[in-house]
Amino acid sequence: MTHDVAILGASGYTGAELVRIIATHPGLRIRALSADRKAGQEMAAVFPHLRHLPLPRLTTVEEVDFAALDLVFCALPHGLSQALVRDLPRDLNVVDLGADFRLRDPADYEKWYGQPHAAPALQPEAVYGLTEFYRDAIRGARLVAGTGCNAATVQYALRPLIAAGVIDLDDIICDLKNGISGAGRALKENMLFAERSEDVAGYSQGGRHRHLGEFDQEFSALAGRPVQILFTPHLVPVNRGILASCHLRGDPQAIHATLAAAYAQEPFIHVLPFGEAPAMAHVQGSNFCHIGVIGDRVKGRAMVVSTLDNLNKGSSGQAVQNANLMLGLPETEGLMLAPVFP
Amino acid sequence: MTHDVAILGASGYTGAELVRIIATHPGLRIRALSADRKAGQEMAAVFPHLRHLPLPRLTTVEEVDFAALDLVFCALPHGLSQALVRDLPRDLNVVDLGADFRLRDPADYEKWYGQPHAAPALQPEAVYGLTEFYRDAIRGARLVAGTGCNAATVQYALRPLIAAGVIDLDDIICDLKNGISGAGRALKENMLFAERSEDVAGYSQGGRHRHLGEFDQEFSALAGRPVQILFTPHLVPVNRGILASCHLRGDPQAIHATLAAAYAQEPFIHVLPFGEAPAMAHVQGSNFCHIGVIGDRVKGRAMVVSTLDNLNKGSSGQAVQNANLMLGLPETEGLMLAPVFP
Amino acid sequence: MTHDVAILGASGYTGAELVRIIATHPGLRIRALSADRKAGQEMAAVFPHLRHLPLPRLTTVEEVDFAALDLVFCALPHGLSQALVRDLPRDLNVVDLGADFRLRDPADYEKWYGQPHAAPALQPEAVYGLTEFYRDAIRGARLVAGTGCNAATVQYALRPLIAAGVIDLDDIICDLKNGISGAGRALKENMLFAERSEDVAGYSQGGRHRHLGEFDQEFSALAGRPVQILFTPHLVPVNRGILASCHLRGDPQAIHATLAAAYAQEPFIHVLPFGEAPAMAHVQGSNFCHIGVIGDRVKGRAMVVSTLDNLNKGSSGQAVQNANLMLGLPETEGLMLAPVFP
Amino acid sequence: MTHDVAILGASGYTGAELVRIIATHPGLRIRALSADRKAGQEMAAVFPHLRHLPLPRLTTVEEVDFAALDLVFCALPHGLSQALVRDLPRDLNVVDLGADFRLRDPADYEKWYGQPHAAPALQPEAVYGLTEFYRDAIRGARLVAGTGCNAATVQYALRPLIAAGVIDLDDIICDLKNGISGAGRALKENMLFAERSEDVAGYSQGGRHRHLGEFDQEFSALAGRPVQILFTPHLVPVNRGILASCHLRGDPQAIHATLAAAYAQEPFIHVLPFGEAPAMAHVQGSNFCHIGVIGDRVKGRAMVVSTLDNLNKGSSGQAVQNANLMLGLPETEGLMLAPVFP
Repeated sequence: MTHDVAILGASGYTGAELVRIIATHPGLRIRALSADRKAGQEMAAVFPHLRHLPLPRLTTVEEVDFAALDLVFCALPHGLSQALVRDLPRDLNVVDLGADFRLRDPADYEKWYGQPHAAPALQPEAVYGLTEFYRDAIRGARLVAGTGCNAATVQYALRPLIAAGVIDLDDIICDLKNGISGAGRALKENMLFAERSEDVAGYSQGGRHRHLGEFDQEFSALAGRPVQILFTPHLVPVNRGILASCHLRGDPQAIHATLAAAYAQEPFIHVLPFGEAPAMAHVQGSNFCHIGVIGDRVKGRAMVVSTLDNLNKGSSGQAVQNANLMLGLPETEGLMLAPVFP
Repeated sequence: MTHDVAILGASGYTGAELVRIIATHPGLRIRALSADRKAGQEMAAVFPHLRHLPLPRLTTVEEVDFAALDLVFCALPHGLSQALVRDLPRDLNVVDLGADFRLRDPADYEKWYGQPHAAPALQPEAVYGLTEFYRDAIRGARLVAGTGCNAATVQYALRPLIAAGVIDLDDIICDLKNGISGAGRALKENMLFAERSEDVAGYSQGGRHRHLGEFDQEFSALAGRPVQILFTPHLVPVNRGILASCHLRGDPQAIHATLAAAYAQEPFIHVLPFGEAPAMAHVQGSNFCHIGVIGDRVKGRAMVVSTLDNLNKGSSGQAVQNANLMLGLPETEGLMLAPVFP
Repeated sequence: MTHDVAILGASGYTGAELVRIIATHPGLRIRALSADRKAGQEMAAVFPHLRHLPLPRLTTVEEVDFAALDLVFCALPHGLSQALVRDLPRDLNVVDLGADFRLRDPADYEKWYGQPHAAPALQPEAVYGLTEFYRDAIRGARLVAGTGCNAATVQYALRPLIAAGVIDLDDIICDLKNGISGAGRALKENMLFAERSEDVAGYSQGGRHRHLGEFDQEFSALAGRPVQILFTPHLVPVNRGILASCHLRGDPQAIHATLAAAYAQEPFIHVLPFGEAPAMAHVQGSNFCHIGVIGDRVKGRAMVVSTLDNLNKGSSGQAVQNANLMLGLPETEGLMLAPVFP
Repeated sequence: MTHDVAILGASGYTGAELVRIIATHPGLRIRALSADRKAGQEMAAVFPHLRHLPLPRLTTVEEVDFAALDLVFCALPHGLSQALVRDLPRDLNVVDLGADFRLRDPADYEKWYGQPHAAPALQPEAVYGLTEFYRDAIRGARLVAGTGCNAATVQYALRPLIAAGVIDLDDIICDLKNGISGAGRALKENMLFAERSEDVAGYSQGGRHRHLGEFDQEFSALAGRPVQILFTPHLVPVNRGILASCHLRGDPQAIHATLAAAYAQEPFIHVLPFGEAPAMAHVQGSNFCHIGVIGDRVKGRAMVVSTLDNLNKGSSGQAVQNANLMLGLPETEGLMLAPVFP
């Protein structure tokens, strides 16, 4: 059985990645693509790599016939989904890829995003979309809030460790290396090729990055007490990928055992043999996450490194994985595309 | 129905790309992977991006049980396939990705590859593997010789034009921009990251590149008289992709019309609207080829630009497309994976 | 003796490159830097790689004290220099890096740049700034018009050949590979890292690129009859560098001999031994141009490949070379910085 | 006055960078270049970017006339300098860029490099070459041992802080992002372009990297008690540059004040305003080091980020800076080349 979906905000990179995934997904069919500023254009004009696909022309959101849909993906800039979702038919499934419904407390949303929540009444029914940890709730949800791409990468490394109590909660340092596509297609001087090529530099460091709102919420809930991690992203000249090096206090072998056990049955999360370092290039283009655990000559210190593709497992792949659950499809359907290397 | 295949030479990039494609191909199942120097290793140790797949361990060629197979892909360095294929069971389908059976005249093989043909008796039954132009012969073939990646890129641009007589056969200049993975995984100083990054430089220029053997053979046969193109490849710091800028004499509109008509029904070859330039980034990771035609202020001059992914449409994707035909499967099966952008 | 200079338009890449060169130039001293939109800022805020230099703060053009200067470099977007230079003190030396004074006939300027020339009275005294070919005129000039970066690259390859009559003037095809910094720091979607990385694609092809105005002017004058070359640039994912592959009809050895003789005494133009291909990576960061000549198995065909750094020899290095001549300094002063490799 | 120097091991990247720097250094003259495996070749054949320089042909070490020299730079793989330097004239100044004389205790050398020290009698006179901290000793030294490139990057960030006692010595985590040229020109599969492009991955992590020998030695001596830092390098697809993110416990403002004071008079070490993140692209091609200090919302935590060019300030630039001191030249002579951006 095929389910009809729409993608709102289809002119961004996560929109294009949704189309790419759905192109070979046997259970989903794209019925509408919206992109307000590019409404009227063919998708192939905006993303020529998709020209082989028979896709609907881009429209405004208003032109979308929501009654004909089983599920809608919202890939809009933050702040736009809340009002939009509020006005959708009540029985329409929604997977939001943005930040609008990630934080349970509307005050947290306002704190991190600088504007009031526009749909606080909807927030209680939103399920946090980190599939592997919210699977049952997602199955029964109508509205799923996709996680931040950094938030996903780090949580895969840390959640089982926090839950198991095998690391020091007050000494968690996450040093991230971030591919450039995470910044989206917006025009910013520091995202020009000549500025980013051959460069590595930090951004939003010092406890200012918005994904900290998700970490605070999730890790504190998991630990049953406030947890604040240190989180420092760096831009690296790579198109896709996030690699999170988490510097921890704890026994490396216990950490490895905990992660290996936690993900033993997970189709998309792979824990490498103890001591092996994962590589960004080995997950690009896929919904997989690789995790490595490395000990140190200094006793009681360990590094957990996780890596995933920010556009796929960190965003659009996760969204399809959640859509599969919401629609009663096999969770891995359409998502077993192997990484593209080299 | 699923067909059992083996990949000989699975530790190179084209071997890995075959595995990636077959991973989501419903009609093929990998039964053996050989790589003499890495025999005994897990494929995931050689290519960690494939670790999610249940693959056989790498073996020597001798350990492969050919009797259990429906088809074998040979992704070996040139010179090794001839003797190997000669000794395979006579009823086993073979798709060779190397150069060993591309040239019909064994003397041409010796001329371009510097060594005598080791299986001249087999050569007559080898079919040249440019699918769109040898489709019927491939369907009935037992041995298909994959084309060179450059050879494929340029032939998609030129064959219909030569056949239709719309270009000057004595003034064909093909200036190629070649991604680095085409050089394979062999250790060469000039293939180190620090040598290739930030660089563009020609190689094998001046009529010395081995793929000229294929061009001479194919274009001369097509034209019914000798044709020698000028062919100048340049290395560009990109992982995957070949972009061939073919500078031609002829009427641009007639050229565009000829190409558009020739490929109108082809699932993988897309001719862009007149005047549009194709981009390497729009075919990477896929079996698609994009072709653009551009006129000039100088009358009677045109440029045809074609681009494809050297590891996929230029090699492993082509191989699977041919295997599909040989095995009676739908030609596009497993090959509609969309390009990965960005 | 030290000469005082200003740089107008110092917030662009060519402005920064001028500062970098002048930083170790013993004969020039920077007295003013203008950048209208960033006036008031420290240069180190706009270009942190220059923070070690004691530089004047950025100002508006109006704030510059032109009376204190010996020479001014104009690194402004095209269209802005004409009116500006018109209003400068009559005895002030000017090196314009933009397109405003390159074309001798104001009608040509209007044709290629789409707007009328704003200072046609000044045009006759402007000297075309391709130093090696206009050396004497530049020495006596007050206003020098820097060449286009592509225009320089191709002219170094072709001028001696056209002058010597050793190539067919009606069959000149120049296929360029262009680094991204040539597009400047302006915000354009197709210049984002994620769009350009891993991509190669043509732009302004088909006889539409503005530098054709320079080619037409220079080559026709040199040949004594109209010459129109074919010129097709391609963007490659490299920060700096242009590599021009010029496909020609002529005797390769005669071509090589002509170029070798023409540049034998030139400090910055190096002709490689016959058959050697130059590489973009070998001139980056420098004022050098490398030229290679390659024959072909097809008799009477040759390729001349020239490469230089678009920001340096193609723009700011050329500008300093011309300034040296205008100010009576040794031509190579401050310009013998070796290329940076890797 | 000009001093005559030789470079032993001139066919590697640090050898080429020495030549590049010395090319515009007014006080040094290259009299000999050795490279055993490439002896007899022109330097321009090995490094075509240096073809404009009148350089001696490459020779074997035996062919070098040491009596004619004032100073020799050894840019040899570790293990080769010890025996070589032992046999040089006793009055010849030596700057070793390798690891052979960095560790004061020959037992430490054996521990980290896996072989016995071949010149233990010479070790006591070797001065550790981190110029800013060993300036006086270097001035009087005959043998200076260049530091590791990572070792330099991290020590610039930490030495003043350890000396001032403003950070917790038992909680120092240094997460490095390393450009690829640091691996040299040796042939390794994981250094191929297609392997490193688009990838980020750790290497030599977990307390195994040899530069830890230097950290242990220097930081423990400085602190007056054992100090062991956590040190985790990651390869990033950049040619040049190391960016070290040091995660520390201490007061961010005190840390910034300490670093700013320590380097206030240093020509090459620049401490950015509090809160600014340095960028690798802003030091490439230069002898400068940029350092930033960033606070965090978590009290008592700070990040110090330092970045430099591994081939220049991390190796060859440092070597020339030390040579300047040893030869009585101004310390900055020949080294004020501005970074190349973009």
